[in-house]
Amino acid sequence: MNVVVLRLGHRYARDKRLSTHVALTARAFGASEVVFDAPDTEVRKSIEAVNRAWGGVFTVSWTGNWKKYVKDFPGDVIHLTMYGLHVNLAIDGIRKSSSDKLVVIGSQKVPAEMYQLADFNIAVGSQPHSEVAALAVFLDRLFETRELDMDFNGLKKIVPQARGKKIV
Amino acid sequence: MNVVVLRLGHRYARDKRLSTHVALTARAFGASEVVFDAPDTEVRKSIEAVNRAWGGVFTVSWTGNWKKYVKDFPGDVIHLTMYGLHVNLAIDGIRKSSSDKLVVIGSQKVPAEMYQLADFNIAVGSQPHSEVAALAVFLDRLFETRELDMDFNGLKKIVPQARGKKIV
Repeated sequence: MNVVVLRLGHRYARDKRLSTHVALTARAFGASEVVFDAPDTEVRKSIEAVNRAWGGVFTVSWTGNWKKYVKDFPGDVIHLTMYGLHVNLAIDGIRKSSSDKLVVIGSQKVPAEMYQLADFNIAVGSQPHSEVAALAVFLDRLFETRELDMDFNGLKKIVPQARGKKIV
Repeated sequence: MNVVVLRLGHRYARDKRLSTHVALTARAFGASEVVFDAPDTEVRKSIEAVNRAWGGVFTVSWTGNWKKYVKDFPGDVIHLTMYGLHVNLAIDGIRKSSSDKLVVIGSQKVPAEMYQLADFNIAVGSQPHSEVAALAVFLDRLFETRELDMDFNGLKKIVPQARGKKIV
């Protein structure tokens, strides 16, 4: 199962750091790609540097037509929104299918059409918080926490320590 | 069990949006307070507005001396870092005690002293990602996903929907 993250409402200057957090979170929690709805070569560059050091082949790309991208996606479309169904109740149904997943997250306001285009509108809690948090917890549920054990085969690798840092 | 989040390395202008994400995530995932290591009245104001609309008594404060704050904290200090012990292996030990918890997250580089001050250095994955993601997943593990069912008793409340938005 391949997981792609689509982030809507990308505003280059304002969102640079948050978009980097979105991309790094998608990568660390088992997605294979993040797609923005506007170009961002800076975020791409910083993620490519992370891949070189820490491994994996996670990619950053963008689309000029997010609606078409969503409609054409060959798999299940899951839109994360505080208005959706409780993730704890919906996750088994989503996991049942081995189809690829497109996980859509917004920044501020998401176009109403997205709620119709999604196969699942899912809430990671019905309180306002952060698309980074929602993405992390959703992927953690989807992969049943096993994403944290993935081997990225990187040049650098951390050996977990009770105190201090150890990199091999 | 009371949970407080301490965020180190706060830089006012640069971090405004990320700090808001940290605070909102702490609130939505069951913490009672976020403490920054520098004043930020803007983040406080925006969180107070969220409390008024969506409920709860989550507070935003700051300390001029984070080391003293950590040393004086009457409970377990958990530092989230990619270099720490795997959260899936460590969480049962942390949950065993009903003491209050201080969850410490950094932005970029955290002073080496923090690794010594912590009772637990915990990794939510040993890959670089986001302190917002790490915080969300850690609290989700700590509360065994029940934090998503908390009732904030807010003026506004969402009724989960398969499509669209419903607020009462």
